[in-house]
Amino acid sequence: MRIRLDIAYDGTHFRGWAAQPGLRTVQGTLEDALARILGTSPRLVVAGRTDAGVHASGQVAHIDLDEQQRLRLPRGRRDGDPVAALAGRLRGVLGAYPDVTVRQSAPAPDGFDARFSAVWRRYRYRLADAASRYDPLERHRTTTVRSILDEAAMDAAARSLIGLHDFAAYCKPREKATTIRTLLDFRWQRDAAGVLVAEVKADAFCHSMVRALVGACAAVGEGRLSVGDVAAIRDAGERTAQAKVLAARGLTLAEVGYPAADLLAARAEQTRNRRDAE
Amino acid sequence: MRIRLDIAYDGTHFRGWAAQPGLRTVQGTLEDALARILGTSPRLVVAGRTDAGVHASGQVAHIDLDEQQRLRLPRGRRDGDPVAALAGRLRGVLGAYPDVTVRQSAPAPDGFDARFSAVWRRYRYRLADAASRYDPLERHRTTTVRSILDEAAMDAAARSLIGLHDFAAYCKPREKATTIRTLLDFRWQRDAAGVLVAEVKADAFCHSMVRALVGACAAVGEGRLSVGDVAAIRDAGERTAQAKVLAARGLTLAEVGYPAADLLAARAEQTRNRRDAE
Repeated sequence: MRIRLDIAYDGTHFRGWAAQPGLRTVQGTLEDALARILGTSPRLVVAGRTDAGVHASGQVAHIDLDEQQRLRLPRGRRDGDPVAALAGRLRGVLGAYPDVTVRQSAPAPDGFDARFSAVWRRYRYRLADAASRYDPLERHRTTTVRSILDEAAMDAAARSLIGLHDFAAYCKPREKATTIRTLLDFRWQRDAAGVLVAEVKADAFCHSMVRALVGACAAVGEGRLSVGDVAAIRDAGERTAQAKVLAARGLTLAEVGYPAADLLAARAEQTRNRRDAE
Repeated sequence: MRIRLDIAYDGTHFRGWAAQPGLRTVQGTLEDALARILGTSPRLVVAGRTDAGVHASGQVAHIDLDEQQRLRLPRGRRDGDPVAALAGRLRGVLGAYPDVTVRQSAPAPDGFDARFSAVWRRYRYRLADAASRYDPLERHRTTTVRSILDEAAMDAAARSLIGLHDFAAYCKPREKATTIRTLLDFRWQRDAAGVLVAEVKADAFCHSMVRALVGACAAVGEGRLSVGDVAAIRDAGERTAQAKVLAARGLTLAEVGYPAADLLAARAEQTRNRRDAE
C-alpha cells in the first residue's frame, strides 16, 4: 500500500532532506515520527532532495506500508479514512510549532512514484537588496545583498535561459548525473516589500542548480555580468567564479507537478503488460 | 534635535520592548547600537511598549540628540542627510540578519512625540485553527488552536466591541492606568492559507488588551461564549476565566497613526503661547 505525503518545512535547522546518521534532517525527523505511529518506519521516497537550509512549501514524498504497518494506521475520526488520518497523527507527534509538517496524506494513485512520476519541480528564491524593505519576520527565508539590483536585467537574463539545454555550467558536478535539463520557466519580479522573487521551474534540477542560476542573475543585477553572459556561460559549459551560488536560506521548493491519475494508471498498466509479454 | 525612528522586529527572542537590566530587549538592543554610533545613547521614547514575544512591523520611537551626539551623526553618502543616514548606519551595526531593524530615520516634525502624539495604534493577530494550512515558515508569528473556529461569529463578536467603552474586563490591572479606550476597528477574516487574522485599532490599548480581546473572540469561535457575551463581559467590567489571554507570538504592532505635520506644529505653537501667557 503506497501513500502520498505532502510536506512543508522551514529548512533553517535541518541539515537538508536526506537522512544522515547523527544529524537532524527532514527525512530522519519524519521517519522517526512514522516509526512512533507504525512501530517501524517505511522509507520515504521524495520528489526533491533539498540541501541544508533549503525550505519547502510543496514537497511530495511517498511511503510503502507492509501489512504490519498497515494494521497500525490510526483509525480516522471524522471521515473514517485511516490514510487521511495519518497526516493528523503525524502532526500530533511532531508537536505544537514544528519546523516540519505533513499537510496531507492520501492513497497514492496506481503507478505513482513521488520521485520518478514527477514531471516538473518549481522553486522560489527570495533575494532582498538595498531597495527592499527588510522584514525581521521574513529573515529565515530571504537572502540579502547590499547593492541595489536591476530587476529588469535579471528578469531578461532569467528568461534567456529557458529551454532544453546542458546546464553543466550551473551544476555542482556529480558522477553519472545528467546535466541536460528543460528549464520551463524562470523569471524575477519584486513583491510588495520590494524583495526580488524568482520563480524557477524545470523537469528536474541538478545539484545546486537553482542557487547557481539565481546567483548568475544577481551578478547581472549588480552589473558584473551582462544579460547575454548568462546564456553564454551556460553554452560554454564550464562553471565560472563570476556567478556565485547564492545561500540556501532564500530557496523554497514550492510545488511538484505530476501527471493526472488516469495517465499514471495507463502508464502503469502498459509497464505491467510489457513485463508480462517479456 | 528630535529624530523619528520607524522600527520592525521579530519579538520571539526579546523580553519585550522596555529595557531591563540583564535581559535582551528591543529598547536595550537599539540603545546599545545607538551608543556605538553616537558615543552615548539617547533614550528611546516609543509609541507601543510591546510585551515579551510580541512583534512589530510599524513601531515608532523618537530620540533627542544633544550637541555631542549630533556631531557624531554619520555623514550621509547619497543624499547627504545625516539624519536619514542614521538608519543605514544602525542597520550596519545590527548585522546581517537581525531580528530588529530601523526602517527609517527622519527629523521629527515640530511638536512630534512618538508616544503622546500618537492618535491610534493598529495591531494584527494571527490565529491558526484545524482548518488553517500550517506553515512552518510562519510559526514564529502565528498562534495555534486545535479546534475549528467559527470566523463569522468571531467577526460579529469583534465588531460588537467597537466604540468608546471601559475595557477593564479586558485589561490586566495597573494602578492609575485608565481602562477607558476607543476601539476604532476590530474584525476577523481568514487569509489565503485559512489563518484567522484580526485587525484591531484603538486610540490606545491598556496592558494585554489585544490578547484578551482576541482570546474572547476565540472563545466565541469555539462556541464556549456567544457573540453577545463579549460585550456583556466588557460591560460587567470584571475579568473572566472564560476569555483567555492568547499567546504573544500571534501579535504584531502593525501601524501607529499621527496627526499631519501642520496640525502637530499648530498644536505645539498653541502650547508655547499658553505657556508664555501663564
